[in-house]
Amino acid sequence: MTEHQRDTVSGLLAEIADVGRDGRRGGYSRPVHSPPEHELREWFVEHAERRGLDVETDRNGIIWAWHGGVGPGALVTGSHLDSVPGGGAFDGPLGVASALVAFDELTARGVTDRRAIAVFPEEEGSRFGLACLGSQLMTGVVTPEHALGLKDVDGRTYAEVARASGFDPERFGADPEALGRIDTFVELHVEQGRGLIDLQRPVAVASSILGHGRWRITVEGEGNHAGATLMADRRDPMVAAAQIVLAIRSLASLVTDARATVGRLIPTPGGTNVIASRVDVWLDVRHPDDTTVQTLVERIREAATLLAAEEGCTATLVQESFSPTVDFDAALRDDLARELGNAPILGTGAGHDAGVLKEKVRTAMLFVRNPTGVSHSPAEHVEDPDAEAGAAALADSLAFLSGR
Amino acid sequence: MTEHQRDTVSGLLAEIADVGRDGRRGGYSRPVHSPPEHELREWFVEHAERRGLDVETDRNGIIWAWHGGVGPGALVTGSHLDSVPGGGAFDGPLGVASALVAFDELTARGVTDRRAIAVFPEEEGSRFGLACLGSQLMTGVVTPEHALGLKDVDGRTYAEVARASGFDPERFGADPEALGRIDTFVELHVEQGRGLIDLQRPVAVASSILGHGRWRITVEGEGNHAGATLMADRRDPMVAAAQIVLAIRSLASLVTDARATVGRLIPTPGGTNVIASRVDVWLDVRHPDDTTVQTLVERIREAATLLAAEEGCTATLVQESFSPTVDFDAALRDDLARELGNAPILGTGAGHDAGVLKEKVRTAMLFVRNPTGVSHSPAEHVEDPDAEAGAAALADSLAFLSGR
Repeated sequence: MTEHQRDTVSGLLAEIADVGRDGRRGGYSRPVHSPPEHELREWFVEHAERRGLDVETDRNGIIWAWHGGVGPGALVTGSHLDSVPGGGAFDGPLGVASALVAFDELTARGVTDRRAIAVFPEEEGSRFGLACLGSQLMTGVVTPEHALGLKDVDGRTYAEVARASGFDPERFGADPEALGRIDTFVELHVEQGRGLIDLQRPVAVASSILGHGRWRITVEGEGNHAGATLMADRRDPMVAAAQIVLAIRSLASLVTDARATVGRLIPTPGGTNVIASRVDVWLDVRHPDDTTVQTLVERIREAATLLAAEEGCTATLVQESFSPTVDFDAALRDDLARELGNAPILGTGAGHDAGVLKEKVRTAMLFVRNPTGVSHSPAEHVEDPDAEAGAAALADSLAFLSGR
Repeated sequence: MTEHQRDTVSGLLAEIADVGRDGRRGGYSRPVHSPPEHELREWFVEHAERRGLDVETDRNGIIWAWHGGVGPGALVTGSHLDSVPGGGAFDGPLGVASALVAFDELTARGVTDRRAIAVFPEEEGSRFGLACLGSQLMTGVVTPEHALGLKDVDGRTYAEVARASGFDPERFGADPEALGRIDTFVELHVEQGRGLIDLQRPVAVASSILGHGRWRITVEGEGNHAGATLMADRRDPMVAAAQIVLAIRSLASLVTDARATVGRLIPTPGGTNVIASRVDVWLDVRHPDDTTVQTLVERIREAATLLAAEEGCTATLVQESFSPTVDFDAALRDDLARELGNAPILGTGAGHDAGVLKEKVRTAMLFVRNPTGVSHSPAEHVEDPDAEAGAAALADSLAFLSGR
């Protein structure tokens, strides 16, 4: 291990504060395999190598940085570097920067157990529509055939984009060897809610991730000229889509603890002077009870079909992804909460790679206070002292797992 | 004048049938100053030069191809080569191809009067949001300051894009010299409606263009995480935008002959797992009576403000452009209808460069039958015999204006 200056989390994040800024939306747009995301990956590799960690990128594009040599029985932490469009500075990079700082702290304490930092690609699913793509491939939840055929907004497949970025798509898929090296996975993440604000605490341990999924409702009507087509002659899928957006709001509001969102809506062709021929309405639904999610989506499907028909349009609803509610390992959760000074235990509505890995290995998550309570937005924030407290909690958690 | 083979309209259009195809939307996407639009401009220049026409591109990026030398008193015809996203093959190029064929016919008839074909950039306004940008700059309806600051979806200004395409934006603006050379302008265009289908005729003369305009309604709320934000805590601009889309449909349906359309709707940031912070709703409104247009837009503004407030959002409505109803020169209209075998006279809901030029020079339009009645869509169509009949009618019109 080479000598290096002790970094802080805020110092590390300051280094990448200019990478992938989005002048139009505000905040950051760092989609997987875009130039900004590649720059962040290089930044991480540099920091890992400066610490003497052994860096490898696996078949699914996950970067691993090893302390104590590549092998089984490793304590693994990490997160992701990609962002939603116009996202904040912390969702993803906070977990990666905190991992580097926690590793420094463990080294300073003389902890030599095998450990690794993992950086997962396409956690947000903002480019190819499927969140946690890297961990879902590694665990075999998603087949490489499905993943590689996913297309971005320009019509490029994940296979094409991965190949252009120097990866071999034919090697993508379940990786039991990589999984088998993980003893325990702990992901640190900015909180995406107001739990820690209300509790006035900097760090929490996760209890569960709400079940969630994505569906695409394709509404089809008749594209035509906006000026030459009488109102009575229209079969306008934008009008049907608007009815569907309102039905989603109403139906979700009737179900306690349900959340349903349309944040992405794409008219085709999308010209101001053109009645759309098609509108794609992307739907995100979450609820602690998986059956309730499916029931709610079924109601939305029925409503969409009826509302589209009233406008002379058709609507088809296709599931793009679904992740059941994840309860993290209860014993580990309670051990970490105790070790971290009776840290509060909080659930989250947001999906994470930890939720995917949990099905295969012992997994925990830490959340760091976000004073705005807002995430997936430039308003997302973490105060410097909370960021350092998070990294310390991560180091304490890994040290506890090492038996020190 | 060099010898050349006699082209047909359908033959000319077949040459460009592969330029700017849009695999995702279907049809063609040929935005101004995109590679496909540049290719079409080059295609036109080649054809003009092959005919020995003198080609010049003016300060505003309008291409002129002259027969009989550059100068005053010219009969001018022409149209545009840019398209809406996912548009048809005829909206624009039909008028350009027909102009070339009509010029060949006039030459064959020995008509030597000075004449020119003009090709106008950004007729659709699909890239910079302002339709008929070239003719509006030339006539001084729009100031260069306003036009050059308009931005495309990537945030690039018209000035930047024009400069990158080899134009000098500092020279853009009113061009009385170019205008002063036009004696009469006749634009041929595919019909964007069902008038000629019902009349069973291939060609019509235009009476008027419906007053129309574009407005942008910006709905702002609170961007947040789709999973972590309770339904009750939301101020979701997508929900408000959906209410506004439905209000637009209702309000427009109450006004006889009014058309109001939302064909473009852009959520920011636009991620599936993100409650939008802002939604831009683009509104197109048309009516024969300009006051009625303004009254309808005012009602939409009031409704948008109220509906946004109900969701804890704000809505602001800004006029992006407005073109009053244009009545073409009545004497010329009647002369041409008579010369063309008592061609029917039809109004249109679609805007055209002819409508802009009409304020400054004597102007007429011819429409060619579209057997689907659908435009701004891949379904737009013209049968080959109708296309040739259109070019013959254009030649007859120009010959009549030449006094032959």
